[in-house]
Amino acid sequence: MQNLFANLPNSLPAELTTVLAESAHIRIERIVSTGNSSPAGYWYDQDEHEWVVLLTGEASLRFEEGETLIMKPGDAVLIPAHRRHRVDSTALDQPTVWLAVFYSS
Amino acid sequence: MQNLFANLPNSLPAELTTVLAESAHIRIERIVSTGNSSPAGYWYDQDEHEWVVLLTGEASLRFEEGETLIMKPGDAVLIPAHRRHRVDSTALDQPTVWLAVFYSS
Repeated sequence: MQNLFANLPNSLPAELTTVLAESAHIRIERIVSTGNSSPAGYWYDQDEHEWVVLLTGEASLRFEEGETLIMKPGDAVLIPAHRRHRVDSTALDQPTVWLAVFYSS
Repeated sequence: MQNLFANLPNSLPAELTTVLAESAHIRIERIVSTGNSSPAGYWYDQDEHEWVVLLTGEASLRFEEGETLIMKPGDAVLIPAHRRHRVDSTALDQPTVWLAVFYSS
């Protein structure tokens, strides 16, 4: 058994990604941010679908076509493959923990 | 965007399962228990692997071969296909929310 909230770092130079489970078709990751954001001008453009839930902290998730989501604990969103997006900001006062499930169609 | 902790019922006659996302190879579910447990003598015996994390509440998860896990928020476990298991109990004083990812090899 593992715990998603155990040993959370308080300060990270970049997002910390841990693969929790994977198979041929899926990959489950814990992602921890401590105020990190995507590099300026960078957009994620992924071959897989990503279903992601924010578990602790807060984040601003922006899509290239204009929508911005302010995500709080429990908020979940499906990001279809190749929907370009970026993390504009994450909470500065506490770690932001995401659980992401990447999968193919 | 959906929120996994929104509109949680306080009392349920049985577990409440909501499919959050699915494709050919995976299914992501929110499962809410309010003191519910598996029927007496019943063991889950699933064709798919299940990666499950407990998000709120508490539960006792028992495997037929003997192991019992007392799960608290953030605790996650991978249950391989056909590893027989049951939920012996869940918290009585608050809803227990699980996030489960079912997938094939």
